[in-house]
Amino acid sequence: MSKFWNQTTKNLQPYVPGEQPRDRKYIKLNTNENPYPPSLKVAESIKKAIGETLRLYPDPTGMELRQTIAQYYDLEVEQIFLGNGSDEVLAFAFMTFFDPEKPILFPNITYSFYKVYASLFQLNYHLIPLDEQFSIPVELFNRENGGIIIPNPNAPTGKCLDIQSIRRILEKNQNSVVIIDEAYIDFGGQSVIPLIKDYPNLLVIQTLSKSRSLAGLRVGFALGQDELIQGLDRVKNSINSYTLDRLALAGATAAIQDEAYFQETRKKIIATRERISADLVDMGFQVIPSQANFIFISHPRYQADLLFQQLREKGILVRYFNAPQIDNYLRVSIGSDEEMTCFLQAVQEIIG
Amino acid sequence: MSKFWNQTTKNLQPYVPGEQPRDRKYIKLNTNENPYPPSLKVAESIKKAIGETLRLYPDPTGMELRQTIAQYYDLEVEQIFLGNGSDEVLAFAFMTFFDPEKPILFPNITYSFYKVYASLFQLNYHLIPLDEQFSIPVELFNRENGGIIIPNPNAPTGKCLDIQSIRRILEKNQNSVVIIDEAYIDFGGQSVIPLIKDYPNLLVIQTLSKSRSLAGLRVGFALGQDELIQGLDRVKNSINSYTLDRLALAGATAAIQDEAYFQETRKKIIATRERISADLVDMGFQVIPSQANFIFISHPRYQADLLFQQLREKGILVRYFNAPQIDNYLRVSIGSDEEMTCFLQAVQEIIG
Repeated sequence: MSKFWNQTTKNLQPYVPGEQPRDRKYIKLNTNENPYPPSLKVAESIKKAIGETLRLYPDPTGMELRQTIAQYYDLEVEQIFLGNGSDEVLAFAFMTFFDPEKPILFPNITYSFYKVYASLFQLNYHLIPLDEQFSIPVELFNRENGGIIIPNPNAPTGKCLDIQSIRRILEKNQNSVVIIDEAYIDFGGQSVIPLIKDYPNLLVIQTLSKSRSLAGLRVGFALGQDELIQGLDRVKNSINSYTLDRLALAGATAAIQDEAYFQETRKKIIATRERISADLVDMGFQVIPSQANFIFISHPRYQADLLFQQLREKGILVRYFNAPQIDNYLRVSIGSDEEMTCFLQAVQEIIG
Repeated sequence: MSKFWNQTTKNLQPYVPGEQPRDRKYIKLNTNENPYPPSLKVAESIKKAIGETLRLYPDPTGMELRQTIAQYYDLEVEQIFLGNGSDEVLAFAFMTFFDPEKPILFPNITYSFYKVYASLFQLNYHLIPLDEQFSIPVELFNRENGGIIIPNPNAPTGKCLDIQSIRRILEKNQNSVVIIDEAYIDFGGQSVIPLIKDYPNLLVIQTLSKSRSLAGLRVGFALGQDELIQGLDRVKNSINSYTLDRLALAGATAAIQDEAYFQETRKKIIATRERISADLVDMGFQVIPSQANFIFISHPRYQADLLFQQLREKGILVRYFNAPQIDNYLRVSIGSDEEMTCFLQAVQEIIG
């Protein structure tokens, strides 16, 4: 602690992302990155944006990328907000909409960044407990709140809520903004984007880091009715007028446009996930049914933290969360078929 | 206003950057961009970073770029904080250090984003009035405060404080963080970076948008003793673990390394500034002595807002601020020699 930090800074417990080690080469199944490279069109598009114009500020409105996203999802440009990864979009959304006078609601097992945002922006929160199967009990969101956030699929469980359940939450909370964090939606879940036209309180957040293979480019976006997007713009324009650089804008636009490649890679990941899940079940694991590019697994006879360590020694990184209810689970990102075969072999060697 | 915005969002008056029009081709002297393209090594370095690895998150610590900056300024890696442009770094610094219980201090004529940050983070501020020559009265900073921020050179005036004056402010405010915003320091001012070793309360913020010709890449940084940098890291890691993408990190590193090109272009801009300033004085303008890549000018017989409009009609964009004490001034970025000759001709035609 430093005397120069203000009280909020002193109280923070920052988010800790999955490790990005540089000491040796690992099979990285710990940060839900996509095993497939981005579309070749991304590189072409970025190359065109390199050059003399880098001396000029980017378009602060990101118009071309917003037009591309609007067309893709059959929305209006005014319904699209861009940010430096979905984490920045989430932070801005917490700042813009959530009411510090009332508790905000999110699941007790969820993306651990939400608690960090709440602490930074001095928001109270009330945790909605998942049931034993890690399902989200929809009716528990019927209580006074200053805002709601739910990842769909949830992380780190990979479990999805159906669209009717989310509609019920939206109906019961018409004075609160309900954020659905769809970072992993492209791997099998059903997006609630079609509900935007009916619910002015719905904000959907997505990212290009997962299903578009662009974690290294930092692009995320929010979708919602104009009023919500205008609010996000106010906050963004009170922090940083240009959050996306020229190269990120160019690359992201190309990624959204290459639908064929997107479909091909996401389907490969889904197929790999289903194959690996079945193999792990055969090996005695409990595998939570996942609609994400990761699986959440537990073994009745083998402690998760031990397995985590032993996999690490074999050069395979997965994610372990030392937290109640999930401390005997591992989150394993879906890598390429070769990577997952190595993973299965390593697990087999460890558990015997 | 929307019922979904929280009270802070409703109260915001966001920053308005200089316009980036797309309706016709302008000579852009309105956003202090560099007229010269970035170093050719920037493009080379970015091209190497495009490809398969874009699927992976960037290094959240930005180690290579921080090592390059540390070496350049003879500092330690632990004394460097990176951000998405110096605006983001400024926002994080306001959040990290400034005390909402006491007024923060900054000049009454200065970078207009500071008031916006104060409003967003609910900080009180007390404005230090500049004298009639737009000089900053150092002794007025001797009062209780929750933090101090001063741009050096100041914007939009271009005027510099000498290092001894800043040292006096640091001495008198040893319990407050004093931020020196050196966005424009490379155009003739004397940096206070050498004071960092003596003053744990000093944070220096710089950007690659101006003197490194990389406004389109969004890279800024802060320099200070470890405790300050650790505080910034806490806040950043509570918002967005990866604020710089792989391409920005690669390009910025190459830009810092190309010292010869940096010296060549900054000296050209300084030479152009001096020539244009002299010509404008000959034409009857008052030109505030500038150490930045812009000049702040006023004409005794010609209203600034009118001149602004007429220059715009002639395809030349400059910046006009409709604010007390400066509403008869124009801020004119220093473009290339050709651009500035066009500017002078246009001014001559208008004022006759």
